[in-house]
Amino acid sequence: MTNDNPENKWIGKRTPRPDGADKVTGRAAYAADTTMPGMIWGKVLRSPHPHARIKSIDTSKAEKLPGVMAVMTSKDIVDFPIDKGPVMLGIQDMRWMCRNVMARERALFHGHPVAAVAATTQAVATEALKLIKVDYEVLPWAISVKDAMKPDATPLHDHVKFDGRPSNIAGTLEHKKGDVEAGFKEADVIVERSFDTEAVHQGYIEPHACLVSVVDGKATIWSSSQGQFMVRAMSALLTGMQQSDIRAIPAEIGGGFGGKTIVYLEPVALVLAKKSGRPVKMVMSREEVFRASGPTSGSMSKVKIGAKKDGTIVAGQGTYWLQAGAFPGSPIRGAAGCAFGPYDIPNAHTLGYDVVSNRSKVAAYRAPGAPIGAYAVECVLDELAEKLGMDPLELRLKNAAKQGTKAVHGPVYPVMGYQETVKQALDHPHYKAPLGPNQGRGVASGYWFNAGGESSAQMSVNEDGSIVVMTGHPDIGGSRASTANIAAELLGIDHSKIQVLIGDTSSIGFSNLTGGSRVTFASAMVVTQSAEKVIKTLCERAAKIWKIEPEAVTWDNGFARPAGDNAGKFEPLSLAQIAAKASETGGPIGAGSSSNTAGAEGGFSTHICDVEVDPDTGRAWVTRYTAFQDVGRAIHPDYCEGQIQGGVAQGIGWALSEEYIYTKDGKLDNAGFLDYRMPVMSDLPKLDAVMIEIPNPKHPQGVRGVGEVPLVPVMAAVANAIHGALGLRLYSLPMSPPKVLEALEPEPLARAAD
Amino acid sequence: MTNDNPENKWIGKRTPRPDGADKVTGRAAYAADTTMPGMIWGKVLRSPHPHARIKSIDTSKAEKLPGVMAVMTSKDIVDFPIDKGPVMLGIQDMRWMCRNVMARERALFHGHPVAAVAATTQAVATEALKLIKVDYEVLPWAISVKDAMKPDATPLHDHVKFDGRPSNIAGTLEHKKGDVEAGFKEADVIVERSFDTEAVHQGYIEPHACLVSVVDGKATIWSSSQGQFMVRAMSALLTGMQQSDIRAIPAEIGGGFGGKTIVYLEPVALVLAKKSGRPVKMVMSREEVFRASGPTSGSMSKVKIGAKKDGTIVAGQGTYWLQAGAFPGSPIRGAAGCAFGPYDIPNAHTLGYDVVSNRSKVAAYRAPGAPIGAYAVECVLDELAEKLGMDPLELRLKNAAKQGTKAVHGPVYPVMGYQETVKQALDHPHYKAPLGPNQGRGVASGYWFNAGGESSAQMSVNEDGSIVVMTGHPDIGGSRASTANIAAELLGIDHSKIQVLIGDTSSIGFSNLTGGSRVTFASAMVVTQSAEKVIKTLCERAAKIWKIEPEAVTWDNGFARPAGDNAGKFEPLSLAQIAAKASETGGPIGAGSSSNTAGAEGGFSTHICDVEVDPDTGRAWVTRYTAFQDVGRAIHPDYCEGQIQGGVAQGIGWALSEEYIYTKDGKLDNAGFLDYRMPVMSDLPKLDAVMIEIPNPKHPQGVRGVGEVPLVPVMAAVANAIHGALGLRLYSLPMSPPKVLEALEPEPLARAAD
Repeated sequence: MTNDNPENKWIGKRTPRPDGADKVTGRAAYAADTTMPGMIWGKVLRSPHPHARIKSIDTSKAEKLPGVMAVMTSKDIVDFPIDKGPVMLGIQDMRWMCRNVMARERALFHGHPVAAVAATTQAVATEALKLIKVDYEVLPWAISVKDAMKPDATPLHDHVKFDGRPSNIAGTLEHKKGDVEAGFKEADVIVERSFDTEAVHQGYIEPHACLVSVVDGKATIWSSSQGQFMVRAMSALLTGMQQSDIRAIPAEIGGGFGGKTIVYLEPVALVLAKKSGRPVKMVMSREEVFRASGPTSGSMSKVKIGAKKDGTIVAGQGTYWLQAGAFPGSPIRGAAGCAFGPYDIPNAHTLGYDVVSNRSKVAAYRAPGAPIGAYAVECVLDELAEKLGMDPLELRLKNAAKQGTKAVHGPVYPVMGYQETVKQALDHPHYKAPLGPNQGRGVASGYWFNAGGESSAQMSVNEDGSIVVMTGHPDIGGSRASTANIAAELLGIDHSKIQVLIGDTSSIGFSNLTGGSRVTFASAMVVTQSAEKVIKTLCERAAKIWKIEPEAVTWDNGFARPAGDNAGKFEPLSLAQIAAKASETGGPIGAGSSSNTAGAEGGFSTHICDVEVDPDTGRAWVTRYTAFQDVGRAIHPDYCEGQIQGGVAQGIGWALSEEYIYTKDGKLDNAGFLDYRMPVMSDLPKLDAVMIEIPNPKHPQGVRGVGEVPLVPVMAAVANAIHGALGLRLYSLPMSPPKVLEALEPEPLARAAD
Repeated sequence: MTNDNPENKWIGKRTPRPDGADKVTGRAAYAADTTMPGMIWGKVLRSPHPHARIKSIDTSKAEKLPGVMAVMTSKDIVDFPIDKGPVMLGIQDMRWMCRNVMARERALFHGHPVAAVAATTQAVATEALKLIKVDYEVLPWAISVKDAMKPDATPLHDHVKFDGRPSNIAGTLEHKKGDVEAGFKEADVIVERSFDTEAVHQGYIEPHACLVSVVDGKATIWSSSQGQFMVRAMSALLTGMQQSDIRAIPAEIGGGFGGKTIVYLEPVALVLAKKSGRPVKMVMSREEVFRASGPTSGSMSKVKIGAKKDGTIVAGQGTYWLQAGAFPGSPIRGAAGCAFGPYDIPNAHTLGYDVVSNRSKVAAYRAPGAPIGAYAVECVLDELAEKLGMDPLELRLKNAAKQGTKAVHGPVYPVMGYQETVKQALDHPHYKAPLGPNQGRGVASGYWFNAGGESSAQMSVNEDGSIVVMTGHPDIGGSRASTANIAAELLGIDHSKIQVLIGDTSSIGFSNLTGGSRVTFASAMVVTQSAEKVIKTLCERAAKIWKIEPEAVTWDNGFARPAGDNAGKFEPLSLAQIAAKASETGGPIGAGSSSNTAGAEGGFSTHICDVEVDPDTGRAWVTRYTAFQDVGRAIHPDYCEGQIQGGVAQGIGWALSEEYIYTKDGKLDNAGFLDYRMPVMSDLPKLDAVMIEIPNPKHPQGVRGVGEVPLVPVMAAVANAIHGALGLRLYSLPMSPPKVLEALEPEPLARAAD
């Protein structure tokens, strides 16, 4: 399992990061770095109530304040009526999106935008917000899933119904395989447990930001997002513009993790720019990011697994209640779909509930829902192994899904490396290393769907034989680097001759979001198609130069060569030599490709985690971590490892310290990085990534998405390790010092909480 | 000859200018508008001598000045040795270009760059220039062609030879047809005259400007040019970078007229940015533009034409001596090639001399050389007509080139409308309108080659059915507007659904310069090819939706329809409907095309000019002007007319007031718009353009280049009109008040000049 694949020259090589120097020298142009002459500042007025009917908004005083150039409310955003059918853009329903961007009938969470202004300075804009009078009728509210589902809870949306009545349960999703009841009857051992997790934020370094300029009805948007085409499409829908009148330029992005797959500021700035006739810049504060951009769901869950004495799992059942936030759309598909993903279980049933409550709308977060699903299943499996007296990895190996397994969520798996991740974990020195006092070791596995979808690429041969490749996805996880490796490999030229860039919506064909671990998978496909076309043209041009048939030319390692002895004897022509003659042989050489890619098979990983717990303070920390993952083919090993390490780090935060804490007034109480505790470097050991390369047979380079699955097993691995350290089990995340202390000494803490 | 072609819906329509509002509201982003964090300023030290050997340059003091971040000289520019063979990029030889950008062995004109600095402020940069010590050995110099060709003139370049000896004649170009000597023997009337013209500047409103950022060896250049690919290629060659490491972004351009087809600042800023590690901005002052960017050549010429009594021209001979400026490369091809272009002459000979002298290197200027060629020929024709007692238009019509004529410069003309321009001029009310006292009327014709060459286009269908078209040429004359008209026409959708943008060197395939009147011609070809591919895809997608064969679908006026009754009965699908289903029918829809276009047949025009002369002051001014031009097909009539009007306005300046005036010290004496007198609005009457549409059979829309030929006949038309007003002929441009007064009263002025 070497990282540098010997059969390839560039694929698998740790080539220089194309964005590295830009980022470390501060040159990378993020959305907030962009300015324009005449630019003014936009600011958002946010609801002070977690739930309130908006009776009226009076903006007249704000409009009169000197320096104020435009004021807007939901009246300026296109209304997609709630009582009409859904208007979908990807997984987003515009009926909710238009109301999330700007509250319409009701303010549904503390921090919900209700109006916005644009003014010559930020200070004037802030002052103007204070002059806007909103007449609210405060309504009862619910923050937690539990409270929101109570029979007497006030429904957030009159048109959302469950069992025929207005409800905060906005939907369900179910997967069934075999006969679960019969399965449990066969079981010798059954474990059933309930769990809960808190909402956690994606925690990207860069807050949401945009600059929008509108001239003569044509808009340009610079913004930070996971998809310039999504920004264009949503901004067009929410403002009633047509797409060709908007050019969305993707800024360098400072992290997204799913949280930048929707718009918050762009349509607002667009309206303000139209109204004011001036370029409008908007940048969220960190507090605004916490209060009003999507975290992922908090959850409740109940999981039951039954096995025979020999460890054969015969039945599994999982029920998940996920916070959607103020509008429907929690990641129940990831929770219910991925929970049993790594296993071959004859009888299984999963059920997810999508529950709205008065908190900010959740957004996608790295394998959305799957970590919640896996957390419960993998903890129950640990307890099951304990009861069976089996090694927890052996239990997983015995029941591991493999090629041909029909998954609980439907598909039949192709060639894939889940078993290999477990085997390598079993054989790894980490699994046998001694543990110290107060230390424990846990393991867990995880599965994530991975996505394909629309991508476009364009490859241009420059006159000097160097190459520019453009793709349409913001580069978050290293897609420029992996694309360069692939292009160099396919063309057979030196890597340094290749420049990869991200196009704006006008420069490149439609390309779907950077998300779903899809970008290297899908980009590689369209880049490969483009390279094949370019190579075909290069051969045709060589044939023209040699005056032979195009079929008599082959491309071999950067050179056109006569194919066989009958083709004639000619000195091979390099790409640069052919490029130099492009004009006289037919014009510029280049090719593009667009495709709705398929075949992005799921990703699997197995993690080993060691923790130590301080029994005095209740603080738990990770002392060693090794993640084993089937990466398909590591196009650029550094970035694959980085994805694995990043996912693990985020999972450790989710497991041990991160949580949304609400006041009794229904307001987020820790809307800043001092109070919302993400792990920092000093909280973490070196995170080890073991990449296993079982090429995806449905992909030209064998690529399998790698970005999301590393987060999936982490909370369970940490929880199982804490059980190892403490000898007792906790069922609630985060396993923060108060909760650990409570588990160790239930009574004093229970007293303190009174 | 209606402008709005009834058979088309959008081609020929005066659709809104896509760049209009941007430009009139000051929003258009020109190169000098671009800024970056950490940006510093570059300034150029220029030679104070018209000719000097550079013995040494000491930059040490400048380097020590606080605030100075980088200093450079020619050592930092790649040397293409003069004594090696040429290294061509288009028509530019890098041996000269590298020395024009930064003087190497010698400073060859007053204003020639010898060093450059980059500093935190413009003031510090200016101060630093003063600290650079250059040790010059001043050499004898020559400004005029006449002086430079004298036997005792100091050669500017030791390796430039003529007749085997070092010379300032850098090259010649000759065209021959028939037997000229024999031809003249057949002639009943012969006129032979000598002419001279002064160097004139293109006079674009926007001075040269650029901003260059280099990070980790990758450069981004924002600059004002007539070709981002030229900027990339030249900057790469002159700094030793590869093209894929440079992204050249075309700013909106404030005029070029040929003068922005080469680089001055970009490689310098690139070197300074590399050395300083900071983004570097450079903007020329107007004085620098005049002193060191290319005007077109001043010239001397001698033309002889012989005709039979009936007006049949039997022989023509023209010799042209053109200023090249400090380095070889004057537009002798345009002068010698186009001079007799409108005529069918059995025996002709033209000869051009390329002469270097100690003035700034000439650059292309609107039909480079052709106006110089036509000026002499068309004035001689006027005198010939007078001697023959013929109407000057009838003389031209009698000898007019037509389909099948073999031109003096080689090609056989295809279908074209030169005769029609003369006929319409003859029939036009202007030609019969009465003239007042001191007024005269002149006519002249002109020819220009027009160019094809490499162009690329990319057409993307957005999810909502709107369209983005990207091309690779800076839009100077309205190519965005004409491209939008063509795309709307071909796709059969509303014009407002189309957005046309200019790509940077990474966004679009190689596209040659905006020049040679080629952009609408060539862009239309690749846009048409792209649209055809898109339409094919749209039909395939409709077939997929209908589950029929793709061949059974046709595209008709914006809709896919079943082709014939056998295809089945289906409701037509609009482009927007097909676009909405793109994802499920195969992915994003779009297509690009690159081509080295051919078939750009020449352009012809005939002008009528009325002038009035004030006999007291010698001031001549144009009172009425009508230009008749074969425009092939007016894709966007407003812009065609604009091109014609603009060309005429520039020709009037060249004819009456513009000239480079040098001091006795060899320095340009009028390097500013107050002293260099371009016509302003109040100097000109309404210029009437009559567009004649004889479609170019080699082009899908019938396009013929229109941008350059309108300048070609102007100086002759004005000169012939002045003859009409004064009854005497002047042979020297500009026909400024002193020269007119001298012609009227030779003696007093001759005295005054003493």
